[in-house]
Amino acid sequence: MDGLVLFAHGSRDARWAEPFEAVLGRVQALVPGVAVTLAYLERMEPDLAEAVAELVRRGARRIRVVPLFLGYGGHLREDLPRLAAAVSAEHPGIVVDLAPPAGEDARVLEALADYCVRELRNARS
Amino acid sequence: MDGLVLFAHGSRDARWAEPFEAVLGRVQALVPGVAVTLAYLERMEPDLAEAVAELVRRGARRIRVVPLFLGYGGHLREDLPRLAAAVSAEHPGIVVDLAPPAGEDARVLEALADYCVRELRNARS
Repeated sequence: MDGLVLFAHGSRDARWAEPFEAVLGRVQALVPGVAVTLAYLERMEPDLAEAVAELVRRGARRIRVVPLFLGYGGHLREDLPRLAAAVSAEHPGIVVDLAPPAGEDARVLEALADYCVRELRNARS
Repeated sequence: MDGLVLFAHGSRDARWAEPFEAVLGRVQALVPGVAVTLAYLERMEPDLAEAVAELVRRGARRIRVVPLFLGYGGHLREDLPRLAAAVSAEHPGIVVDLAPPAGEDARVLEALADYCVRELRNARS
């Protein structure tokens, strides 16, 4: 079974996670045969290690980690690869690999730009 | 003239801003008659006050601030309204208003979910 971790930053404010929970629900509906979960870098649970352990318990053998980050700085260039390497070492025989962050995707950037233009027009109409 | 501020978090890593600069370029191409700029909450320049002052110098009289944030926590619920109120007070006669964050937009969430599914399938093909 494939596993998919949607990796987000985390916040002290529980409401912060609502958009990510909405993405999780949408993704799980699109790929019902894949074990999907959220994980957070900090301040929210589960962290990456807990999320991967849970997917392995659910039967996942190949786990893709997709960062739901727009900017691409130290958290993704340094923290996430280190966390992913540690998690891989804990689970011999399980493949854990990292996708580029969402902010590198042309369609995500297009959706963001379209949103900005719609927001401008809505406010002026 | 209308003004539009794309408001992002900021990072110590200059490369972090690249996706936001890409969104800026795309938005400016879609609304060539609007003065558009980026602004950052922290660690990058300009901040919101500098960005709004620049748009006012360029002739903007109504300025919409669109947060390019996915999560909706303390930065947007507390910091941004406080910053926007201070900026409004500095510019009598100029309208500065706040849009909901990008992570509240159904099409942005849909693009994020589609990206996750594509990333999973690409990795497995």
